[in-house]
Amino acid sequence: MVKVGVLKMGAIGTALLVEYLLDERADRGDIEVRVVTSGAKMQPEEAVVAEKLKEFDPDVVIVISPNAALPGPKAAREAFEGKPVIVISDAPAKKAKEEFEQKGFGYILINADSMIGARREFLDPTEMALFNSDVVKVLAATGAFRIVQEELDRVIEAVKKGETPELPKIVISAQKAVKAGNFQNPYAKAKAMAAYFIAEKVADIDVKGCFIERDPEKYIPLVASAHEMMRVAALLADQAREIEKSNDTVYRTPHSKEGEILKKFELMGKPE
Amino acid sequence: MVKVGVLKMGAIGTALLVEYLLDERADRGDIEVRVVTSGAKMQPEEAVVAEKLKEFDPDVVIVISPNAALPGPKAAREAFEGKPVIVISDAPAKKAKEEFEQKGFGYILINADSMIGARREFLDPTEMALFNSDVVKVLAATGAFRIVQEELDRVIEAVKKGETPELPKIVISAQKAVKAGNFQNPYAKAKAMAAYFIAEKVADIDVKGCFIERDPEKYIPLVASAHEMMRVAALLADQAREIEKSNDTVYRTPHSKEGEILKKFELMGKPE
Amino acid sequence: MVKVGVLKMGAIGTALLVEYLLDERADRGDIEVRVVTSGAKMQPEEAVVAEKLKEFDPDVVIVISPNAALPGPKAAREAFEGKPVIVISDAPAKKAKEEFEQKGFGYILINADSMIGARREFLDPTEMALFNSDVVKVLAATGAFRIVQEELDRVIEAVKKGETPELPKIVISAQKAVKAGNFQNPYAKAKAMAAYFIAEKVADIDVKGCFIERDPEKYIPLVASAHEMMRVAALLADQAREIEKSNDTVYRTPHSKEGEILKKFELMGKPE
Amino acid sequence: MVKVGVLKMGAIGTALLVEYLLDERADRGDIEVRVVTSGAKMQPEEAVVAEKLKEFDPDVVIVISPNAALPGPKAAREAFEGKPVIVISDAPAKKAKEEFEQKGFGYILINADSMIGARREFLDPTEMALFNSDVVKVLAATGAFRIVQEELDRVIEAVKKGETPELPKIVISAQKAVKAGNFQNPYAKAKAMAAYFIAEKVADIDVKGCFIERDPEKYIPLVASAHEMMRVAALLADQAREIEKSNDTVYRTPHSKEGEILKKFELMGKPE
Amino acid sequence: MVKVGVLKMGAIGTALLVEYLLDERADRGDIEVRVVTSGAKMQPEEAVVAEKLKEFDPDVVIVISPNAALPGPKAAREAFEGKPVIVISDAPAKKAKEEFEQKGFGYILINADSMIGARREFLDPTEMALFNSDVVKVLAATGAFRIVQEELDRVIEAVKKGETPELPKIVISAQKAVKAGNFQNPYAKAKAMAAYFIAEKVADIDVKGCFIERDPEKYIPLVASAHEMMRVAALLADQAREIEKSNDTVYRTPHSKEGEILKKFELMGKPE
Amino acid sequence: MVKVGVLKMGAIGTALLVEYLLDERADRGDIEVRVVTSGAKMQPEEAVVAEKLKEFDPDVVIVISPNAALPGPKAAREAFEGKPVIVISDAPAKKAKEEFEQKGFGYILINADSMIGARREFLDPTEMALFNSDVVKVLAATGAFRIVQEELDRVIEAVKKGETPELPKIVISAQKAVKAGNFQNPYAKAKAMAAYFIAEKVADIDVKGCFIERDPEKYIPLVASAHEMMRVAALLADQAREIEKSNDTVYRTPHSKEGEILKKFELMGKPE
Repeated sequence: MVKVGVLKMGAIGTALLVEYLLDERADRGDIEVRVVTSGAKMQPEEAVVAEKLKEFDPDVVIVISPNAALPGPKAAREAFEGKPVIVISDAPAKKAKEEFEQKGFGYILINADSMIGARREFLDPTEMALFNSDVVKVLAATGAFRIVQEELDRVIEAVKKGETPELPKIVISAQKAVKAGNFQNPYAKAKAMAAYFIAEKVADIDVKGCFIERDPEKYIPLVASAHEMMRVAALLADQAREIEKSNDTVYRTPHSKEGEILKKFELMGKPE
Repeated sequence: MVKVGVLKMGAIGTALLVEYLLDERADRGDIEVRVVTSGAKMQPEEAVVAEKLKEFDPDVVIVISPNAALPGPKAAREAFEGKPVIVISDAPAKKAKEEFEQKGFGYILINADSMIGARREFLDPTEMALFNSDVVKVLAATGAFRIVQEELDRVIEAVKKGETPELPKIVISAQKAVKAGNFQNPYAKAKAMAAYFIAEKVADIDVKGCFIERDPEKYIPLVASAHEMMRVAALLADQAREIEKSNDTVYRTPHSKEGEILKKFELMGKPE
Repeated sequence: MVKVGVLKMGAIGTALLVEYLLDERADRGDIEVRVVTSGAKMQPEEAVVAEKLKEFDPDVVIVISPNAALPGPKAAREAFEGKPVIVISDAPAKKAKEEFEQKGFGYILINADSMIGARREFLDPTEMALFNSDVVKVLAATGAFRIVQEELDRVIEAVKKGETPELPKIVISAQKAVKAGNFQNPYAKAKAMAAYFIAEKVADIDVKGCFIERDPEKYIPLVASAHEMMRVAALLADQAREIEKSNDTVYRTPHSKEGEILKKFELMGKPE
Repeated sequence: MVKVGVLKMGAIGTALLVEYLLDERADRGDIEVRVVTSGAKMQPEEAVVAEKLKEFDPDVVIVISPNAALPGPKAAREAFEGKPVIVISDAPAKKAKEEFEQKGFGYILINADSMIGARREFLDPTEMALFNSDVVKVLAATGAFRIVQEELDRVIEAVKKGETPELPKIVISAQKAVKAGNFQNPYAKAKAMAAYFIAEKVADIDVKGCFIERDPEKYIPLVASAHEMMRVAALLADQAREIEKSNDTVYRTPHSKEGEILKKFELMGKPE
Repeated sequence: MVKVGVLKMGAIGTALLVEYLLDERADRGDIEVRVVTSGAKMQPEEAVVAEKLKEFDPDVVIVISPNAALPGPKAAREAFEGKPVIVISDAPAKKAKEEFEQKGFGYILINADSMIGARREFLDPTEMALFNSDVVKVLAATGAFRIVQEELDRVIEAVKKGETPELPKIVISAQKAVKAGNFQNPYAKAKAMAAYFIAEKVADIDVKGCFIERDPEKYIPLVASAHEMMRVAALLADQAREIEKSNDTVYRTPHSKEGEILKKFELMGKPE
Repeated sequence: MVKVGVLKMGAIGTALLVEYLLDERADRGDIEVRVVTSGAKMQPEEAVVAEKLKEFDPDVVIVISPNAALPGPKAAREAFEGKPVIVISDAPAKKAKEEFEQKGFGYILINADSMIGARREFLDPTEMALFNSDVVKVLAATGAFRIVQEELDRVIEAVKKGETPELPKIVISAQKAVKAGNFQNPYAKAKAMAAYFIAEKVADIDVKGCFIERDPEKYIPLVASAHEMMRVAALLADQAREIEKSNDTVYRTPHSKEGEILKKFELMGKPE
């Protein structure tokens, strides 16, 4: 039984689902999962939750947050130095790649898990949820979440076998996402890439809307257009999957009870 | 500062986002949030995570899980008896309503937060994430999440004032969801209700596909059709919101820094 | 030449087209059809039209109406006792199944041929026609109408051969509909099933809107949302067929001049 | 009580619903309706059904068929000479306009109620039903059916008052249809007109596909493309209505119990 | 090196792109192209631009305009009598077919390159551009532009070889367009044909709106509906291509550097 | 009468239509237009066409090409030094802004008029036309083309009055485009901005696909995804306009016969 500890600080799309990606039908017998989070905030003082997670004595630690280059997430991961720690974060975290490498942290940085349009005139809980719904659609349908699944499973597998796991060092680009998406139709693949590229670009617009423009007349249209982009990216990623459905070639990778990754294409077929 | 403890067991759509619904821009100064979960599982033994949450000494406790009538969630909420506890769950939890009332637990049961199609031939992490994306879209766009926001905020507000909070006792039907959605166009409202009704029905199909049919030739089409229903419900809920957008009447309820719920309709207007 | 008498009372989607389902190109030489109806009404006194149909001396009688458990349709079919009578009706008629069996009536009850939102504030001739357009789309594209075709043709064939026909005893569920739909792509099949399930659910909402809620503020949104559900079911059923089109695997079963059911898949191929 | 007799020969879209257009909620107390038809066929010998209708002694007679210039429909209407007879038919019936005028028949000729693609390789009962679903959508959503409703109601009203009714003499063009559609948004109106124009054009293609081309390699694509045109016309007509919905300006004309045509625009308002 | 001279008078959809159809990647070494135009106008006096083109001494001349039967285009092509001249125009130019034949001009007349809705209340530069975008989509996606490409390339090839080219004499109907479109799925072909038929019909409506109706209350809805038709034709043509994409059977005919037409179907394959 | 000379080198979306943007109904009496181009190519030697344009002795010169920083376009504009020259180009031309300013050239650089996916395996004349159709849709529907119209008209107006025109110096960003688009609904504006941002991003992907990746396995998916992005941007821009249509607030700016820019919003209204 591998103990997987997950520490979440603040919200990115991947954070919503990361623990379920490991055990989508809640029937896996080889892992025990514990997640702690202090909610939406990610100040250094939130890193106290790391203490709670330590009591669980995890074999593998996942620290997931927006912009892992910030002090809060940094403090959190450093609390687990010495353990296999995997940082999951978004594009701005690329600034900290060197630090990750130096300290031996694994990392999965997801370019398309873009920043939300966090302006009070625009973002309420409903809009926040809708944006995350779209982000999740993009990351799942393009294949990005499968990389997260595969990399975490690989590390867990190594720990299970008593080996020192090789931690992931991966920045998920459109190309890498769709490779994991394993699209059988090349236009489905192209649409998925397009969705991913659009989702990536959202971050630029939202950064401008949240941190650069100060006039509501300017920043409201910016953040609103960024969310329209994510919405259209979600629709496009969905369309890519619909093509695979129309050919009965959707690639699926369910976990077995023992935590292996099974594979299948035909809907009516058996995963193997 | 009100301490809000959230205990999650297993996955329902609302669980993905509940802590962020309270503080969508991570700038709220009046609450401190702590979430613990043991991931996808919800056996009684998972209720140990309640102990960790107790150490946080929360003022308000949210226990969120599928089917709160099961022993696992029951054990979890009972660990907090005496505190203001709010159970958030789905339609099957209605069976436990009487128990909630007797023990003084508040509850928010969300009819449309339907069970997933948890069959190995169908459900892999990708499909799981896509289904949840659709559920979140339905719950957010119809107004169901706004009820969660409003009810939790109301309890927090009472605690902040030192009052004994009146805990929510609500089953979210289509009618209640769209009332909170506050649609200004009656067809947008009708579409949102339609989306909610379809999402509700998904549970029936998935129960049949997961627990009744034993032959893959039968249950795979059932769970696949249930997810198609949720997908179309999400598209329909989105369309409802698009109508409100086309009239510039989207209702938004962002939190102020002090945790009040502000209100606005026109995109370029100020929340008040 | 088999004489087929059709008696319609009131409107369900199937009633609009039932006689044309038997002879879609009006070139069939083996049957003679006579239809009488008293229009939208279905009171027992409307059953007088049965007398007119009797003068035609039909070999096979089809009595088609909503809720065949009501007195009007009952009187109508009883006027033909002794002849091969096939009742075609909707889900509420399931209450009369035992009676059908006892009296030797055949029956085809179509779950998804749901009640309309018959409220004056909502339903005018235009809305009525649009709803029926959607119902027909669902019943045709999922495969439900093919069951009607096949069962009626089977009975006619037996009569033609001088045999005592075995009358149909069938409640058309989603599963049965799509089996007749003969979808070659499993996702097309899943979408068709989803469409059928949604269409079924419409009846519940319309019953509530028409018979239970008395306040227009409540029942108008209900019937409006029911029609939105049927609209989306029609779009989804259409999408299922579009998938089959994209694979050139649409199943077609035209009648030959002699009234046999021919079969084909490839659009440019010959029916055989 | 006005007795309305309807004789149907063969199938056009309007024939499917004409009796229900008069009494969409089956609660009208001022009319009695009797419909007879011999199904899909329209040979002169089918006109015998007129005899049955005569026994009903109708005050108003509606004879509805494709191409009313053909001998079958001609025989049928002539059986009722002397009574107020209204011919409802499609564009090819325009050839008989002079005859209608001479013999004092009223007529409503609906340009967009186009001929089906009646080729055995293409048209089976399912395709036939789908095409009719699309035709009905176009005719209802553009406003064409409202002209039928209004003209028939006007005649019935005159008969009720003991007056000699002025029979309709109308060819329903796109412009006339959308006038009755009473669109409040000019782009909705333009889309409805576009849908109507496309539906009209379907007849040309189907005539070519059914009567001119003899090679299946040529006529199958033609009839298939004609149905694609009708499908897209239906989607466009639906879009027109969606615009009116988004502005809460859908025009509705339900019947009162007494058979008057009521009017309303706002969904939540009362018809008056 | 073949010198291709293009003279444009006024705007049709094909005129926007004709020179790029010959050299889509600007890397073709075997031709030199010169285009002159006097913009939107097409009066006989505009034919002076022909003089400029003559100075280029083209081996092949393309004269492209709406309604080539008008005096302006006539003067322009006559300026090049004796050279191989190919007239490219729209449906009204069919009136001049006999003249083309007599004078030895080649011609490509494109039925679906329909007249725009040139009414000041409706047509501004933005609407004009949008209409042309839709026309180009229809002509490209159905296959009509491929005929233009193939016919021009054929003539250029002959000139290159020193042969007297056989000039094209072709009226592009829906059937011819989709043959060049080389659709592998028969429903994609049917949709493309439907799109083409709709686009053709646009001309009738626009002629009525521009030249017959004089009352803005009448002609504005007409031209607006004509543009809605072209918009929907574009969407339908796009859908046809999407089907081919979903099967990875999009037919492509890029030019080689040497000006040959290469062919391919699979996206990842090599053109040959 | 102002003589407007247009020199095109190579293809960008704006080049297809620039002369028609000045005179969309071909009835403007105050300008004379002459366009010359050497087709798709843009080598310095193509600049000879400038000589032909000089003979026309234009009052205003427009030099339009991709990447105006390249030697070909540079030679072309320099041929007209001393005259009012306006360079119209795409984002890469920003490198030449300083040069434009120094030499007194006006410029309009359109960020979203992105480079095409010019790879032989992907780009044939059909794909080229489809991409341009999408680009034109984006540029027209967002408002970018209206800036081109307004700036050129402003210069022409000055020349007409005998004034020295102030030449435009403008880089069209999303914000500037939608300002000219004059959207009345803020979500329509946000969608238009989103479309523009996506279209901008296409250039990055196509540059990578055309100039950086050398392996077809890598560059084909890149250019294919870039075109999917442009396609989705076109659909989104169209949706923005559809919202304005649904509110009858489409902004139109037709030219009067005298070349003034008129303005209107309501479709049935008069431009003024």
